[in-house]
Amino acid sequence: MKQFTSINDVPDLKALIALARTGKANPQLHASLGEGKAVCLLFLNPSLRTRLSTQRAAAHLGLTCMVMDVGRDGWQLEFSDGVIMNGNKAEHVREAAQVVSQYCDVIGLRTFSALKDRDEDYSEPVLSAFVKYASVPVLSLESAIRHPLQSLTDLITIEEHVKVAKPKIVLSWAPHPRALPQAVANSFAEWTRAAGHEITIACPQGFELSDAFSNGHIVTHDQDAALAGADVVYTKNWSSFKDYGAIGEGLDDWQITADKMALTKEAKFMHCLPVRRNVVVSDAVIDSANSLVFAQADNRTWAAKSVLQMLLHD
Amino acid sequence: MKQFTSINDVPDLKALIALARTGKANPQLHASLGEGKAVCLLFLNPSLRTRLSTQRAAAHLGLTCMVMDVGRDGWQLEFSDGVIMNGNKAEHVREAAQVVSQYCDVIGLRTFSALKDRDEDYSEPVLSAFVKYASVPVLSLESAIRHPLQSLTDLITIEEHVKVAKPKIVLSWAPHPRALPQAVANSFAEWTRAAGHEITIACPQGFELSDAFSNGHIVTHDQDAALAGADVVYTKNWSSFKDYGAIGEGLDDWQITADKMALTKEAKFMHCLPVRRNVVVSDAVIDSANSLVFAQADNRTWAAKSVLQMLLHD
Amino acid sequence: MKQFTSINDVPDLKALIALARTGKANPQLHASLGEGKAVCLLFLNPSLRTRLSTQRAAAHLGLTCMVMDVGRDGWQLEFSDGVIMNGNKAEHVREAAQVVSQYCDVIGLRTFSALKDRDEDYSEPVLSAFVKYASVPVLSLESAIRHPLQSLTDLITIEEHVKVAKPKIVLSWAPHPRALPQAVANSFAEWTRAAGHEITIACPQGFELSDAFSNGHIVTHDQDAALAGADVVYTKNWSSFKDYGAIGEGLDDWQITADKMALTKEAKFMHCLPVRRNVVVSDAVIDSANSLVFAQADNRTWAAKSVLQMLLHD
Repeated sequence: MKQFTSINDVPDLKALIALARTGKANPQLHASLGEGKAVCLLFLNPSLRTRLSTQRAAAHLGLTCMVMDVGRDGWQLEFSDGVIMNGNKAEHVREAAQVVSQYCDVIGLRTFSALKDRDEDYSEPVLSAFVKYASVPVLSLESAIRHPLQSLTDLITIEEHVKVAKPKIVLSWAPHPRALPQAVANSFAEWTRAAGHEITIACPQGFELSDAFSNGHIVTHDQDAALAGADVVYTKNWSSFKDYGAIGEGLDDWQITADKMALTKEAKFMHCLPVRRNVVVSDAVIDSANSLVFAQADNRTWAAKSVLQMLLHD
Repeated sequence: MKQFTSINDVPDLKALIALARTGKANPQLHASLGEGKAVCLLFLNPSLRTRLSTQRAAAHLGLTCMVMDVGRDGWQLEFSDGVIMNGNKAEHVREAAQVVSQYCDVIGLRTFSALKDRDEDYSEPVLSAFVKYASVPVLSLESAIRHPLQSLTDLITIEEHVKVAKPKIVLSWAPHPRALPQAVANSFAEWTRAAGHEITIACPQGFELSDAFSNGHIVTHDQDAALAGADVVYTKNWSSFKDYGAIGEGLDDWQITADKMALTKEAKFMHCLPVRRNVVVSDAVIDSANSLVFAQADNRTWAAKSVLQMLLHD
Repeated sequence: MKQFTSINDVPDLKALIALARTGKANPQLHASLGEGKAVCLLFLNPSLRTRLSTQRAAAHLGLTCMVMDVGRDGWQLEFSDGVIMNGNKAEHVREAAQVVSQYCDVIGLRTFSALKDRDEDYSEPVLSAFVKYASVPVLSLESAIRHPLQSLTDLITIEEHVKVAKPKIVLSWAPHPRALPQAVANSFAEWTRAAGHEITIACPQGFELSDAFSNGHIVTHDQDAALAGADVVYTKNWSSFKDYGAIGEGLDDWQITADKMALTKEAKFMHCLPVRRNVVVSDAVIDSANSLVFAQADNRTWAAKSVLQMLLHD
């Protein structure tokens, strides 16, 4: 793999999932694959799971891992070309991306959407600048509109825990007090499609994902109908794509509760975390035996390990 | 050891001190004990000695060490159960503790007391939540009311440097411009008691430690009488337990000076650092040949190494 | 080497450059030289290149690397002697430097000039305090008035890319919207002098470096004359030494542009980065084939590796 920024970078999804599961079954299998090499994780936004699981994955491969909070530890970056840099940005991404490339073999990058200008966010200004100027593979640790490591994790978890042949998978929008990116939902839609699933996306009017991501799936505004007979309920908040960044009002009843789970076929419950309890999902559901949230979090390590292996091999 | 949060977690104090001293004498002895394993150090409050000495201890064991400033690098944590999380806390400790457990074999945790609500602080809300929800051993890097790694260090240092059979050990309260936790003093009291020492705690009226900690020791408000004939003077500020968090006024003469040390039996001087010179202790005393502050700081590495060994073995 | 703070600490510059180039040619040559040892990088100011390249250099030597942002992760430090520490500084450098020395074999330290009091900056208050109180070698990661790792990198880069026997090297002052230290320019002057180069320093009136650094070189206020026939153009902003910390006005035409480079003998272009494009240098020049900025950045790793090797050997 030349980079890992979306499902489009994955030549063989089944093989990647298999590699991750092998790595999980045998943590010490490739313990010296990364010897003498390094990955640099650049954070422009906060992270807990991604930060720690990717560090651990690197350690499992004997790979040196350097973690840096760009902007706080270093300098504010400029992303526009041709500008006179006399403001508060001390370094251009052209230099930053190329320079960091010289200190490592893979660059991991986390950046969120600003949720102000939709076209700008959907052009992935930060990630694509790093991809353009870096001379080593770029590993997305979540970008403005995608979170591919999370989706790989989610597919591994579904393969491990959902034994139905053609499971009904529901991606259900959830309420949230703050505006969040569409990244996790977008990626879940494109990765499940690539895995051959037609999922049901349930969301309030105005919270439909971009067609580019929901394409090939069922979109409904009737949450109860969506949940009926579901084998997997993946809930997640995202702000509006249409009325870009809006969070809506009076949508609290989209929370996943025990009553709603009762509509399903004893569905597994999934969420990428961090999650706001009793806003997104009730205590009863997330604490139930059917909750896969910790299985998902655990698989972050093995997803990252498999992707690092693929990036180092190329 | 299942966890390391107080003296009560230590099955055999003498054996632990001996293990630390062996590790110090032979830094390379267990250089591959931690191979393939990881410790994650979570900081909710600042640290210099603990941060660096625990990292170094991990390195001596071949253990991967991941350091994270929770709250700054990640998310604000919620510790109350059953709440509707629609405020500024993005993740519940139930998820955070369990998730981090999946990325490492030991969780180190530093958290200070807020010094507002005594009952809350003394219930150790943060540490006990991590202990409750983590699925790997928790290593206290200082909690609201205890600092066990420091006390282990202090006992190692006393064993190395104080050759009197039954030394007179004085814990002497010190002035300080800001309100500090009782953690170091509390722990020193319970660890010295466990080691068979009856110490003398000298403090102004109103600065007595909680009975649970001072129990079995001598408490006095007469500093000079306490210092008379002392073999060890451990000085440390703590804010009031009674008038919770108060720092007092007009207590500057509790500073340890050369005149006060002259009352002792050429006592060793101890402090856990960081220390405010000429407030807590005069330059002459801390810079004297009898000062053990660097010996204490050095032993932090070997204390942490021995505790990590014990936690990894279980 | 007992320390690495300026050219004066280098017993044999040619040998050091040769060591760096050998390390670059054979990255795995000394992969276990640092085994069981550790370097601690303390940052009092931001860093990207130095932070990452020194971490990577340590990894190439099998050396444990601990990175800490003093002041943010730990405590504010006091540098004055004899003061009553009842303000906002919680720890004296006497303790901090000695304590950190106990957790590692080399202390790396980055600190910038405050650009307020020239005499204070030029006395190197922070670096010299660490040198004084540390019990292990101190490695400057840039100090108030010098950046020796950068200068070593620059000399390696010149040796690799400039094949003229006696090259004309021009250090040309550049405009900048904020006041920057003289550190890079000062060091470049003293390291090139030690390497046997008489360089030409071109700067506006009032921006002359301290005589101690410019001594032995040609100083001119005529940029065009300086550039004429140049083989190397090193551009860098620095604030005034004379009118200490002043940035000047109406000096925008000191920017290095293609027109100015046309005056040279197809000179190589150098800058230490980060650089403000179209303020310090035009896009056309930094993006040209003659630009060595990435070669310089790359050599930071090999410079750091060679210096760490020298410091560990002593």
